[in-house]
Amino acid sequence: MSEAPTDRLQHQIAFLLEADKLKTIIRRTPLTDSSRLENSAEHSWHLAVAAIALHEYAPDGTDLGRVLELIAVHDLVEIDAGDTFAYDPEAYATKAERELAAAERVFGVLPADQGNRLRALWDEFETQETKESRFANALDRFQALLQNMGAGGGSWIAHGVTRTQVLARMAPVQAAAPRLWPFVLATIETFCASGAIAGL
Amino acid sequence: MSEAPTDRLQHQIAFLLEADKLKTIIRRTPLTDSSRLENSAEHSWHLAVAAIALHEYAPDGTDLGRVLELIAVHDLVEIDAGDTFAYDPEAYATKAERELAAAERVFGVLPADQGNRLRALWDEFETQETKESRFANALDRFQALLQNMGAGGGSWIAHGVTRTQVLARMAPVQAAAPRLWPFVLATIETFCASGAIAGL
Repeated sequence: MSEAPTDRLQHQIAFLLEADKLKTIIRRTPLTDSSRLENSAEHSWHLAVAAIALHEYAPDGTDLGRVLELIAVHDLVEIDAGDTFAYDPEAYATKAERELAAAERVFGVLPADQGNRLRALWDEFETQETKESRFANALDRFQALLQNMGAGGGSWIAHGVTRTQVLARMAPVQAAAPRLWPFVLATIETFCASGAIAGL
Repeated sequence: MSEAPTDRLQHQIAFLLEADKLKTIIRRTPLTDSSRLENSAEHSWHLAVAAIALHEYAPDGTDLGRVLELIAVHDLVEIDAGDTFAYDPEAYATKAERELAAAERVFGVLPADQGNRLRALWDEFETQETKESRFANALDRFQALLQNMGAGGGSWIAHGVTRTQVLARMAPVQAAAPRLWPFVLATIETFCASGAIAGL
């Protein structure tokens, strides 16, 4: 007879099985080949790769390991709260409340000390008070731009998004990784010129 | 007229668009709800979450940030080489050669200094000489066990995998995270008893 896992490990495994559900949460951004919309789990991985590849654009002293931890947990609340489309003001109005309840439940599956630690990572990402969280958030916005760019318009076309909306959505890139901003602007102008982004 | 991005940023963006393809590489392990097989990008994200949740089972002094970097890049070669099924000896015979060629091309999309840095991360994962790479590899094996367990048998049933094969596949868990081993053994015995793993 094999030994039963400890109660602590049972909770950790329950959390990892719970985390698996993030693979079923669908975003509005497509894969660059437009074959389907991406899910929040693979999106989170893509942000980790972007953090490594674009770390030099972060402010001096930005801790990459911390950025990678923030990225890994930042969307876990979507398991309960769903992905809130960036350009849907009605859904955005209830986002904070839905995600707070989700954070309580999802991180609450872990042993208390770890639940608190992961909850603190999520809070750090949400409150945007550290350079690591601001860089992670900038990547979150920038990666969506790359997906839509690669797909030839993606959610910009599908949802009639305007230049003003995209500029506002991308503002964290200008703030946290200003050397990426000229590329963001050039991309927006290109897709306004093609009509994929409405020129308003 | 907006400024064109630098040549360096162009290569970094080309690499991130290339990385997007990992979302289309399908593994043999299912989601725990059995709705579909998982892809290598979302799998890589799940390993990052597992590294954070299970870090206490790694040897003392294992650098979590480094583990997260290794995990983020460890499967990128599959963009060209595909996912090699763990229990397919013929495919495994050509795995190293296919993945080496893929590493040359995929990391070669980046500026040379970064390509070398990411290639070094991939090499570190492959050669298994650091505790970070051994822990990352143990998680890679352990997460597949969780997926099959959660799905009630998953690829074990689908491919007639035997107890001897699963034990050999899970050996890195015993070596790098021995306190997880009793859970692995108990899980294997449970699924042998149910017939999901062939008792050979």
